[in-house]
Amino acid sequence: MASLRSTKNTDLEAALAAAINNKTKPLGSLGRLEELAAQIGLIQQTTTPKLNAPGIMIFAGDHGVVAEGVSAYPQDVTWQMVENFLAGGAAINVFAKQNGIDLQIVDAGVNHDFGAREFLHNCKVANGTCNFAQEPAMTSAQCQMALQNGRDLVARLSGNVLGFGEMGIGNTTAAAALMHKLSGVAVADCVGAGTGLNSAGILHKQKVIEAAVALHAKVTEPLDVLACFGGFEIATMVGAMLAAAERRMVLLIDGFIVTSALLVAAKMEPAILDYCVFSHQSDESGHARMLQVLGAKPVLQLDLRLGEGTGAALVYPMLQAAVNFLNQMATFGSAQVSEKSAG
Amino acid sequence: MASLRSTKNTDLEAALAAAINNKTKPLGSLGRLEELAAQIGLIQQTTTPKLNAPGIMIFAGDHGVVAEGVSAYPQDVTWQMVENFLAGGAAINVFAKQNGIDLQIVDAGVNHDFGAREFLHNCKVANGTCNFAQEPAMTSAQCQMALQNGRDLVARLSGNVLGFGEMGIGNTTAAAALMHKLSGVAVADCVGAGTGLNSAGILHKQKVIEAAVALHAKVTEPLDVLACFGGFEIATMVGAMLAAAERRMVLLIDGFIVTSALLVAAKMEPAILDYCVFSHQSDESGHARMLQVLGAKPVLQLDLRLGEGTGAALVYPMLQAAVNFLNQMATFGSAQVSEKSAG
Repeated sequence: MASLRSTKNTDLEAALAAAINNKTKPLGSLGRLEELAAQIGLIQQTTTPKLNAPGIMIFAGDHGVVAEGVSAYPQDVTWQMVENFLAGGAAINVFAKQNGIDLQIVDAGVNHDFGAREFLHNCKVANGTCNFAQEPAMTSAQCQMALQNGRDLVARLSGNVLGFGEMGIGNTTAAAALMHKLSGVAVADCVGAGTGLNSAGILHKQKVIEAAVALHAKVTEPLDVLACFGGFEIATMVGAMLAAAERRMVLLIDGFIVTSALLVAAKMEPAILDYCVFSHQSDESGHARMLQVLGAKPVLQLDLRLGEGTGAALVYPMLQAAVNFLNQMATFGSAQVSEKSAG
Repeated sequence: MASLRSTKNTDLEAALAAAINNKTKPLGSLGRLEELAAQIGLIQQTTTPKLNAPGIMIFAGDHGVVAEGVSAYPQDVTWQMVENFLAGGAAINVFAKQNGIDLQIVDAGVNHDFGAREFLHNCKVANGTCNFAQEPAMTSAQCQMALQNGRDLVARLSGNVLGFGEMGIGNTTAAAALMHKLSGVAVADCVGAGTGLNSAGILHKQKVIEAAVALHAKVTEPLDVLACFGGFEIATMVGAMLAAAERRMVLLIDGFIVTSALLVAAKMEPAILDYCVFSHQSDESGHARMLQVLGAKPVLQLDLRLGEGTGAALVYPMLQAAVNFLNQMATFGSAQVSEKSAG
């Protein structure tokens, strides 16, 4: 039963529109930034929103379905890239640092023993999911544990902006299966190249998903679909997203896999979409369609298809610009600039 | 006679591609940022480009053609907005400050006496252009003076990134006329709402331009077209653009008016396009077509139509991201991450 509140507030919307329109600029001329400013104002319930201590969490997990040969990279790359995150060498490290974003890494279920490590949250449910081509990826209990892990992680945060990133070899396969099950879009329109499959590889991935969907045809409830096809990183993200929206944070949605987690969360709590900024439209072929299903308008179109939360990190200066113009620009009155005179 | 050198360099292109492809990410997965990194590397002739002391110049000027009722705002808004820039209250002030960009304001020909003012470059050619609906906007001598002013301004800069912005009530009319004359696109496809005309206002603007184009039908050489229809801010920008490219700076092209100045510059020196980053696609209706004419791909699509260089300021973090990933990301080898294993 949905319990998350919408940000809808007619009086505040009018006050935000008045504040935006009174700035020294032609009406509507800051385009998407005006929409972002109004959205963030509604989320924070104020005409003077502030962004505090922005963070990005990268949720990592492994996928049993890689046994079917659905990825261009070996499974070891998941833990190797976690090490790369911890060492500061990945794209997301560079972009988070550039934009002053705190980066946290979450082992939601990587098939590797990292030992106790500073800066790595141990939320491992298991060493990777089971192969959903043969059996459900996880049990209901595992799925619940992952959701709760995500909620617990968010409870410890102090900021009001949270970006979502992921790492998991095979997870575009899981995300495509979730997309198909939750949106009804044909599997062929959900699958893409992932980290770099050729057309034969993409077709094979499609066949693997179609067969798995037929095997698990009776699974229809969102949480059951998540357990059957999802990854631990995806399920942990779903919990984190729900908790972040409950805390009225701004959620920065990244690419294909993160958006698939949001598909699940939005089935549970449709109002979560009010809290989401769709950072970018990924080059992964199903992402545009997935955004369409959610009625979402991405801010950036940079042909990214890297994951890790890179789009979320890159969009952050646009949020700053939105909040800054609202708080810092002069009004026509204060700057003594003449207003519009003609039609 | 064109003398500006292209940035083309096959060996360096290969070295940049190798450096980009060896970073710990799927091939091509940083999309537009990879193209930007390679472009900036070619401009700076290095595989380790750096961005130093970025600046934005706002070129302001008035337009005699406003007598024809082509703008939604009174002409006084030009000087009032210059005062707003000097006081720090405009959108461009906010975005430049946010992104650490030095902002300089240029009076290229505003119809107002500012007196001696700190932070305002006095490059005034005259108190606004003549009304091109009746006579050429400026003389050849005035046009040459504006071009030289632009060159002189750039000669004093120390940074290697220059964004171009403008302010001038009536200047979308001038820019639309330039676009039509230099590209052959029908006037109806060059005009737009500017600061906020309704459809009747846009149609009137179109008729004014069509009549002026008929009046000055014999004017065809780029510099003559610039003098006949341009503004002092546009002509000064053309000079600044040419000088900036000669100094191998990265040129950040903003919206409709700035791009119209580049159309002129590119007719004189086609290689200038190698040095240009097209910040965004504006919501001003002719801009998409103008970009197409130049074969240009904008980085951002935020439905901006404000001018002032706001798009140039907003795109700057994307340039930083491009340069930063190239300089800071780990390679597959250094991070011990496995490379692609399957098709």
